[in-house]
Amino acid sequence: MNVNAHSYEDRYVVGVDFGTLSGRAVVVRVSDGAEVGTGVHEYAHGVVERELPGTGQKLPPDWALQSPRDWLDVLRIAVPAALADGGVDPARVIGISTDFTACTVLPTTMDGTPLCELPELAGRPHAWPKLWKHHAAQKQADRINRLAHERGEPWIARYGGKISSEWQYAKALQVLEEDPLVYERTERWIEAADWIVWQLTGIETRNTCTAGYKGIFQDGSYPSPDYLAALHPSFVDFPETRLSKTLSPLGALVGGLVDIGTGLPIGIAVATGNVDAHVTAPAAQAVENGRLLAIMGTSTCHVLNGSALVDVPGICGVVDGGITAGSFGYEAGQSAVGDIFAWWLRTGVPEAYQREAAANGESLHDLLGRKSAGQPVGAHGLVALDWMGGNRSILVDHDLSGIIAGLTLATRPEEIYRALLEATAYGTRVIIENFEKHGIPVTEFIVAGGLKQNALLMQIYADVLRRPVSVARSDQGPALGSAIHAAVAAGAYPDVVAAAAAMGGVETAAYEPDHANSDVYDQLFAEYRLLHDTFAGRGLLHRLREIRNTALTPAPDRDQAGSIAEGTLR
Amino acid sequence: MNVNAHSYEDRYVVGVDFGTLSGRAVVVRVSDGAEVGTGVHEYAHGVVERELPGTGQKLPPDWALQSPRDWLDVLRIAVPAALADGGVDPARVIGISTDFTACTVLPTTMDGTPLCELPELAGRPHAWPKLWKHHAAQKQADRINRLAHERGEPWIARYGGKISSEWQYAKALQVLEEDPLVYERTERWIEAADWIVWQLTGIETRNTCTAGYKGIFQDGSYPSPDYLAALHPSFVDFPETRLSKTLSPLGALVGGLVDIGTGLPIGIAVATGNVDAHVTAPAAQAVENGRLLAIMGTSTCHVLNGSALVDVPGICGVVDGGITAGSFGYEAGQSAVGDIFAWWLRTGVPEAYQREAAANGESLHDLLGRKSAGQPVGAHGLVALDWMGGNRSILVDHDLSGIIAGLTLATRPEEIYRALLEATAYGTRVIIENFEKHGIPVTEFIVAGGLKQNALLMQIYADVLRRPVSVARSDQGPALGSAIHAAVAAGAYPDVVAAAAAMGGVETAAYEPDHANSDVYDQLFAEYRLLHDTFAGRGLLHRLREIRNTALTPAPDRDQAGSIAEGTLR
Repeated sequence: MNVNAHSYEDRYVVGVDFGTLSGRAVVVRVSDGAEVGTGVHEYAHGVVERELPGTGQKLPPDWALQSPRDWLDVLRIAVPAALADGGVDPARVIGISTDFTACTVLPTTMDGTPLCELPELAGRPHAWPKLWKHHAAQKQADRINRLAHERGEPWIARYGGKISSEWQYAKALQVLEEDPLVYERTERWIEAADWIVWQLTGIETRNTCTAGYKGIFQDGSYPSPDYLAALHPSFVDFPETRLSKTLSPLGALVGGLVDIGTGLPIGIAVATGNVDAHVTAPAAQAVENGRLLAIMGTSTCHVLNGSALVDVPGICGVVDGGITAGSFGYEAGQSAVGDIFAWWLRTGVPEAYQREAAANGESLHDLLGRKSAGQPVGAHGLVALDWMGGNRSILVDHDLSGIIAGLTLATRPEEIYRALLEATAYGTRVIIENFEKHGIPVTEFIVAGGLKQNALLMQIYADVLRRPVSVARSDQGPALGSAIHAAVAAGAYPDVVAAAAAMGGVETAAYEPDHANSDVYDQLFAEYRLLHDTFAGRGLLHRLREIRNTALTPAPDRDQAGSIAEGTLR
Repeated sequence: MNVNAHSYEDRYVVGVDFGTLSGRAVVVRVSDGAEVGTGVHEYAHGVVERELPGTGQKLPPDWALQSPRDWLDVLRIAVPAALADGGVDPARVIGISTDFTACTVLPTTMDGTPLCELPELAGRPHAWPKLWKHHAAQKQADRINRLAHERGEPWIARYGGKISSEWQYAKALQVLEEDPLVYERTERWIEAADWIVWQLTGIETRNTCTAGYKGIFQDGSYPSPDYLAALHPSFVDFPETRLSKTLSPLGALVGGLVDIGTGLPIGIAVATGNVDAHVTAPAAQAVENGRLLAIMGTSTCHVLNGSALVDVPGICGVVDGGITAGSFGYEAGQSAVGDIFAWWLRTGVPEAYQREAAANGESLHDLLGRKSAGQPVGAHGLVALDWMGGNRSILVDHDLSGIIAGLTLATRPEEIYRALLEATAYGTRVIIENFEKHGIPVTEFIVAGGLKQNALLMQIYADVLRRPVSVARSDQGPALGSAIHAAVAAGAYPDVVAAAAAMGGVETAAYEPDHANSDVYDQLFAEYRLLHDTFAGRGLLHRLREIRNTALTPAPDRDQAGSIAEGTLR
């Protein structure tokens, strides 16, 4: 692929993937992407949800924090471990790159010191990094969205009409409103993806991916001071005073590695930071326009490059260069996928099945899959809405909930299991059809993430989508993707697309659709789509949620009457 | 209650309840209804579903037959056992009455000999009694209904617009069409409820209850010869040639007991036959107009007397004197109730729950009930449609199926269990509201049957219906009800209402509604009703059923394109 590849046969790069509970380093050969060594380090503090480390300070519900020291430990422990595992001489390593969960964001001083490491602030929860799944800023997100729509802010359409409570602005506004002192001391509000690169290089910069998807940076600007002042008078200068002006495209060289205990040569290339989902695209060779990568695990994230900038309703966002420089990167998602299957396993699997699985030495997933796989498509008579975790795309509504229809006294656990697998495939089909309807072609469907191992699920996706399913080669997609970015930053390849061609890997059309099955799935999908459109919006499911919330709220705390029209499904 | 009661303090009657798998005899004191002795006999052949006794002749799917000898064994074994159990001198017994499942129906010769007992016919399945749950005559029922509506037959409205495949005409037409020889040899087509009385007395008569509810006898007539000829030319004289002209009201004396091995005095009173559900009404003192009795078990049957004759849509039927002489007896039903809870127990209860129940020595019902009982009403955020066994009333549609809406990743098995309990209560509320809307008042709600033991369920019904729930005293309601009829036939009471007052028993308002709960249930019921009305009819659920049936049918047997409009929920 690359004319220089032969000269990199004994050169390596390191990709480091910072996950929710641990960090993983992988040593990768530059010439062909071979993964030669791996090291993993679990964070000592994991996810901080109950009390602050050291101080015992209790946290409110829905909070989720992390400790920056845990991240640094990954560099000091997992990177040397990966080198040792691969038997690779550090001198042969020419670059390092990192990816992170997002939006994971923290307040620092001007020199990058996390505020939680200042003794006088360590006991204040808002001084700590907020993990992606910190969900306590919903009130702020609601106001951000309401005001954006009221004022007709142009950027809101880039995010499918809704900014998430997980993202930079909602979390920052929560700090301002709940702990003004910490906000006052915040000299930089920075994605962990960028903070770790700052530690590796001493250079502060923002990556275009999180700046766009999580930081409302669109067409070269942040939200206007007028808009920000309307949110909160003191928020007027938030980007001006607290966000770095420097932006770096993905795969760019940020600077040379400093001595931070990685065991790698000082001065080797350090690439721009990135997000775990988006960085997987080159690892799966899903970087050309039209190749949609679904990273399927507990939830699914879809990333897709397109040549045109279009406001697609219901997606998570579109960012110029958000996946690779030179394309518009589209992101969509399904809130719960593997999580739904796991929910059913702990809810709907009787003792006899557990005994059978144990006797066979197989997992419950395998047992249910095996029991349901032999049945003709449609024989269970079921269709489900996969909204047990809400709907991220294309409805962007976390107050929706799941439905199972068609139940009979003869319905068996494995039939519901299969209907749930199918429901997530229908959800993906809605997302793909939505992209195509709005002029963003999807030419190939590629899967990465843990669920790519589930052959029944992959075949269902092929049949429901009536198109081949390609499967990423690597089981360490994010770390391999980071390594590919490191190779580009080190100059081994001219760009990420070229590096992906040489170092990434995909089994093209690993699953082909069975068109007889697809014919039946077309009928079932029509029913899914009918349920989807019937129950979308603020109708029956929202009212059930309100009834639930009222029932669970002590009477004095209850809000007054809800705002949902009665008697309608939506 | 009755002026003569004191003279019956040492007199007894016997009630015999013929169920699906066994018969139960109860010896009851005439003066106060005390149940002093019980005997049970399980049928040797149970339900004949696979092959004919003796011959090994295989049966098609959906068939369900019984052996008349099993019924006679109940008289010869369970009745003496009940007398012995109670230490009652047979000479003190003044009457016997029986009730039966319905419509259980058989072909006999003119002298009452079942055709299956004729050696030359014993190997022909159609010569055997068809049990109520023989479901192989749906094609015939469909034609009966279509033709009745096309011709505007007046009686069809008495049955909520639909004659069941379980009833006399559908089953007889199936015999005619599938085995004309057996039909030719059929000199009498008779309900088992009437056949057993024929054996006890030597007298052939039809009870007004099954003649009305199962035999399309309305306003003194059967369906017209014109109509019957249109169904099948040879069916024109079916009632004229094969149904007894004699009808007997409930509680009437048919004749004196003959020697059939019961151990009871020859010549004592034998009452008209009856149906297990309807006969329970006097046992629960639910005979005055307006007192609705719900017999709640695997399914629920509702019986209710009214002073007026009204065509109520969606009920099973209305029959003059169908429950007690002098009132119009209304019957409605829910196809599956306890069956739904049992379905969930075998589908949705994980191993850990089974272990917990075993460790506590409690049933799974108790465990799920206990876990869900503490939660505020509505806190599960769920609403379900209780159509897992189809919908008998008020939609009369067995091709519907169940729905559960509001599922989240946090939904627990006991929450779904509770939502299913509630769904059956909503189904009952729809039936009660339907009666009242059509001018048949419901003044009291009384429960008999096995589910009356479930206190959580009873409280939910009280709360959902926002009215007290009364509970039948006896755990042997049908047999006690039969005994009450025997006492009337023996002359101990002037009528069934008087006998019920003395011998029946009910705990009035055993459960009172909690109005705060009722307020929340009003909201949830509105959502149930919205789902109910949305999914009723030939829409999404019918299409799922057709997709299922097509998937399960080998390709050469498939019908051509279905007739259901696409893209609509109903």
